[in-house]
Amino acid sequence: MKKRIPLQRAYRLINHGPVVLVSTRYRGRPNVCTAAWVMPLDVDRVAIVISSENYTARCIVATREFVVNIPNRMLAKTVLRCGSVSGSKVDKFNAFGLTPEPARRVKAPLVGECIGHLECRVISGEGRLARKYDLFLARVVAASAERGLFTDRWNVRLPRARTLHHLGGNIFAVPAGRIVK
Amino acid sequence: MKKRIPLQRAYRLINHGPVVLVSTRYRGRPNVCTAAWVMPLDVDRVAIVISSENYTARCIVATREFVVNIPNRMLAKTVLRCGSVSGSKVDKFNAFGLTPEPARRVKAPLVGECIGHLECRVISGEGRLARKYDLFLARVVAASAERGLFTDRWNVRLPRARTLHHLGGNIFAVPAGRIVK
Repeated sequence: MKKRIPLQRAYRLINHGPVVLVSTRYRGRPNVCTAAWVMPLDVDRVAIVISSENYTARCIVATREFVVNIPNRMLAKTVLRCGSVSGSKVDKFNAFGLTPEPARRVKAPLVGECIGHLECRVISGEGRLARKYDLFLARVVAASAERGLFTDRWNVRLPRARTLHHLGGNIFAVPAGRIVK
Repeated sequence: MKKRIPLQRAYRLINHGPVVLVSTRYRGRPNVCTAAWVMPLDVDRVAIVISSENYTARCIVATREFVVNIPNRMLAKTVLRCGSVSGSKVDKFNAFGLTPEPARRVKAPLVGECIGHLECRVISGEGRLARKYDLFLARVVAASAERGLFTDRWNVRLPRARTLHHLGGNIFAVPAGRIVK
């Protein structure tokens, strides 16, 4: 079960730097790709790099919408797969057994298997950044997370709340510990 | 001992989303602040959010240079302290027992206690982003990391290579595990 997260807390879903799955819907067709270069731009805004060579960039430019989905460690293989083939050729939701679920504020689907979601709309007038740096700036218009795993922050003591942090190649770090000061 | 990292691999120092310390030198005076919102923009470029209310933003605007330093888990307390007071009032290097070391390509100092460093120069013509979003885009002009902890990527099996990932408040996740697929 997912619960709504207040927009003022949306940034905390990605504040610790996890790899994400970016989902889009273009001409009715859902697609998903992997992205490691994403960060909060504000409490309810995100910055994300999507290569202009990727089908996902084309979908975002056309629809100005996407969802940032946060996978947990159980989805490591899926994350690598989603980053290894193009959505222009493969129906990745179908091929990798992912469930497109309706989002609340955008037409792009949520990836049902993920533990958190940021529904995003590209900020107007920043198309130059996408052309020059593959950089998209977006406003979070809705946020949700798996009940119990995220309260005011991710509870990484719970194995299902442990996200993937891309070290390079096919290797991820996983936050199995935490420090409270 | 630190070793040089090829610029083509610079992004891997922050690819997994660690919190960083940003160091500057303005009018001869070194300063350091904490930042969690940082990501690669390319293999040898970074995007980072620094609030315009912060002394560090003023230093970067004036000098167009900074260093992204990667602290490990042993520096959790220092990371919180550096984020809690302003460099306009406190000499944080001195107050928190940090060592400013000379960088290779910029005048801003390295934070000697950190395990990795990205020496950065702000990309020309993007000042509008700093004014509008507190967002700085920069080119990495030199990179270095602690010998043994970073080879082609961080070796998080070594406790000293374990970075801090900010969950919120005074709580960090630490990558104590890894997944190889």
